[in-house]
Amino acid sequence: MSEVQQLSERGRRPGVREIESRREQNMRLKRERIFRAASDLLRARGFSEVTTQEVSAAAGVAAGTLFRYAATKSELLLMVYNEALRASIDEGAARAALTPDPAAAVFARLHPLVVAAAREPENSAAYQRELLFGPHDAKFRAEGMALIFELEASLSDTLRRAAPTLSDGEARVTGSSLFAVTHLAIARMTASDIPEADAIDDLRRQVTLIVTGVLHTPRRPDPPPEKE
Amino acid sequence: MSEVQQLSERGRRPGVREIESRREQNMRLKRERIFRAASDLLRARGFSEVTTQEVSAAAGVAAGTLFRYAATKSELLLMVYNEALRASIDEGAARAALTPDPAAAVFARLHPLVVAAAREPENSAAYQRELLFGPHDAKFRAEGMALIFELEASLSDTLRRAAPTLSDGEARVTGSSLFAVTHLAIARMTASDIPEADAIDDLRRQVTLIVTGVLHTPRRPDPPPEKE
Repeated sequence: MSEVQQLSERGRRPGVREIESRREQNMRLKRERIFRAASDLLRARGFSEVTTQEVSAAAGVAAGTLFRYAATKSELLLMVYNEALRASIDEGAARAALTPDPAAAVFARLHPLVVAAAREPENSAAYQRELLFGPHDAKFRAEGMALIFELEASLSDTLRRAAPTLSDGEARVTGSSLFAVTHLAIARMTASDIPEADAIDDLRRQVTLIVTGVLHTPRRPDPPPEKE
Repeated sequence: MSEVQQLSERGRRPGVREIESRREQNMRLKRERIFRAASDLLRARGFSEVTTQEVSAAAGVAAGTLFRYAATKSELLLMVYNEALRASIDEGAARAALTPDPAAAVFARLHPLVVAAAREPENSAAYQRELLFGPHDAKFRAEGMALIFELEASLSDTLRRAAPTLSDGEARVTGSSLFAVTHLAIARMTASDIPEADAIDDLRRQVTLIVTGVLHTPRRPDPPPEKE
């Protein structure tokens, strides 16, 4: 609002409504251009090679404008790959819905994440790094973490098909384990140059292990936190 | 050797043996001073606040000398926290040796890692980040990864106490799962500000889940890698 008032006070006097609407459209178009430029450059050249200057040039916006949308290269990465994570989660949900066996359905949810990461190992590793170990106040990081929690919750729901009496605590802990092995599968593909097929086969075996574990754990109410 | 020859050619002519011995001692003392200075500064002020200049000043060595031992702040971090990881692994091994129950013994191996990380959350998160997601050619990174593989192998050995017929593939995959949940427990303590007691309780439950899974998985020979 104060920007609108400043504009008006500079002597241009169209209706405030009209300016707001143009500003909003303008902002949306800029955001889309920035997203597209960041996505294209990151995918073409990889996180380590791209600079924010190149993104602002490709998007046709000033450096200061880019800074307001994403202050660092890591924020651009989070912005772009949150969308990729969302797409992988949606793909996994669609596959899981068609898979009756609970361990296979859990794996169906996680498989697209590893396949996507194998296609873009550098950017995927950088994304997981920024999400889990980057600055806490980075823009778009909270959205990414929310996607991870949503994924974990959906894994718990899938497990409840096979174990309807799973307590909330057990379901949460199992979802965490399943994301942990997926995260490490992605990290290891890049950190230790493990081939995609091996990483996926390992992940399938780890998922089976965890699902077998949860199905064989005697059901009991959540215990109070233990003291060490 | 060529440095020794250069020294000699500059006109000083003590015995080559004597120079080598002094050089070796000199290098060792410098390395110890650098390690001590990096360890003290990182622990006192945290990874993000410390500069390599401060480390070289505190160690009483030139910037160029420091660069030969550790070219970046991340390499200093890896150097210092590899030793901390080694100490945690040794402590866990000693505890596991006194713990008959396999799930409890596995947890005893992992518990010291999370306790150490809770004491120094920023540096521990940065260490795990550099180890798994940092530059592949970073000095000291290979040593850190070797410690992780050693830890995973020791977890497999602990599990074999309860399941002597565990195949190598199953043992390796289980060790990977156990490290994955430990790594994420450490990441989450810092990334999501989860309290230490909750992180440790979650880890215990995840370890129980995975160990239950491996003990209930029908034994079979390792399958050939599956195609996706």
